[in-house]
Amino acid sequence: MNWVEYKRKKLEGYTLAKERGEVDEDIIPLLDLINSFDCFVTTSSCSGRIGILDMPEFGDKVEAKFLGKWHDMVEFKDVLKAVRRGQRVVWLIMYPPIIHIACRDLSCAEELISIANKSGFRRSGIISLKNWVVEITSLERLELPVALNGEIILSESALKIMVDFANRKLAKSKEKLKRLYKALEELKV
Amino acid sequence: MNWVEYKRKKLEGYTLAKERGEVDEDIIPLLDLINSFDCFVTTSSCSGRIGILDMPEFGDKVEAKFLGKWHDMVEFKDVLKAVRRGQRVVWLIMYPPIIHIACRDLSCAEELISIANKSGFRRSGIISLKNWVVEITSLERLELPVALNGEIILSESALKIMVDFANRKLAKSKEKLKRLYKALEELKV
Repeated sequence: MNWVEYKRKKLEGYTLAKERGEVDEDIIPLLDLINSFDCFVTTSSCSGRIGILDMPEFGDKVEAKFLGKWHDMVEFKDVLKAVRRGQRVVWLIMYPPIIHIACRDLSCAEELISIANKSGFRRSGIISLKNWVVEITSLERLELPVALNGEIILSESALKIMVDFANRKLAKSKEKLKRLYKALEELKV
Repeated sequence: MNWVEYKRKKLEGYTLAKERGEVDEDIIPLLDLINSFDCFVTTSSCSGRIGILDMPEFGDKVEAKFLGKWHDMVEFKDVLKAVRRGQRVVWLIMYPPIIHIACRDLSCAEELISIANKSGFRRSGIISLKNWVVEITSLERLELPVALNGEIILSESALKIMVDFANRKLAKSKEKLKRLYKALEELKV
């Protein structure tokens, strides 16, 4: 499949996902901008999130279940509500934005990585050589167990501190999305 | 600089770092194996670690200071000792192994990424196109604040649980180093 055909197919999938509300809203302008370049097409994304995960046992993410998931600042009471529903190993996580972008050729991928790095996304690189898929992401993270077998292991005040840090780290990582948007806009001119 | 010359220089640096004890010991056999391939040379590495970091303020890793750092299972009492020395925002972190490997050409990089992924290092990709530097790493992490301004915010039992999870996640991520070693050994035959 040539690039134009490949991009057309991927764009169709993206448009459908948008219509179904499956794309994080706050990242849509950026994805649209990326897709407006002939040489790029987005293949998947998450705008960054805070989540409460219930895991059946240590590390088994395949069977993990989200008890709560937020792409923006979250309130402590909502986190607490989600944590209380957990029955196994309950984790509080904050993950930074992650975007996968297929590129027409290696030099497009190179330019994208350079712009991503300059925008603060220091964990960016080519993860697949088929269609030169670039992963753009950064390092802000929070990840800890907060309850075991129905019992919360942190005091309310400690859990509040964790949520506060999660919110601040999420905000910081989302700032980078704005920088990336601006850098790509400048490239457009 | 051609590849042979580049590799020779990088290997010199690696040998010197080994002599100075600056390379994590448990990863040396793997690095030696990687460097025994004509098409690869390691440029930096960490075998995975648990650490206690004192940060001057939110997220400012540049000025962060390690109060404790362990490349293997750590005992709770040693963690507690390090946490108690913290004065600002004290974080407990567990990071998986990370290895940077320059490759002779794109097809070597491609093979390396494929082997890394199969060994469980699901966060592997080309991070620099100059010398095709591949970053090999995975997703096991634990990262949380444990003390603020000299005050520990977790109960002793909660902190013990965190250290226990950090140890188990570190062990799990280090298992992948063994799988990578075996896969590379098989490639050698």
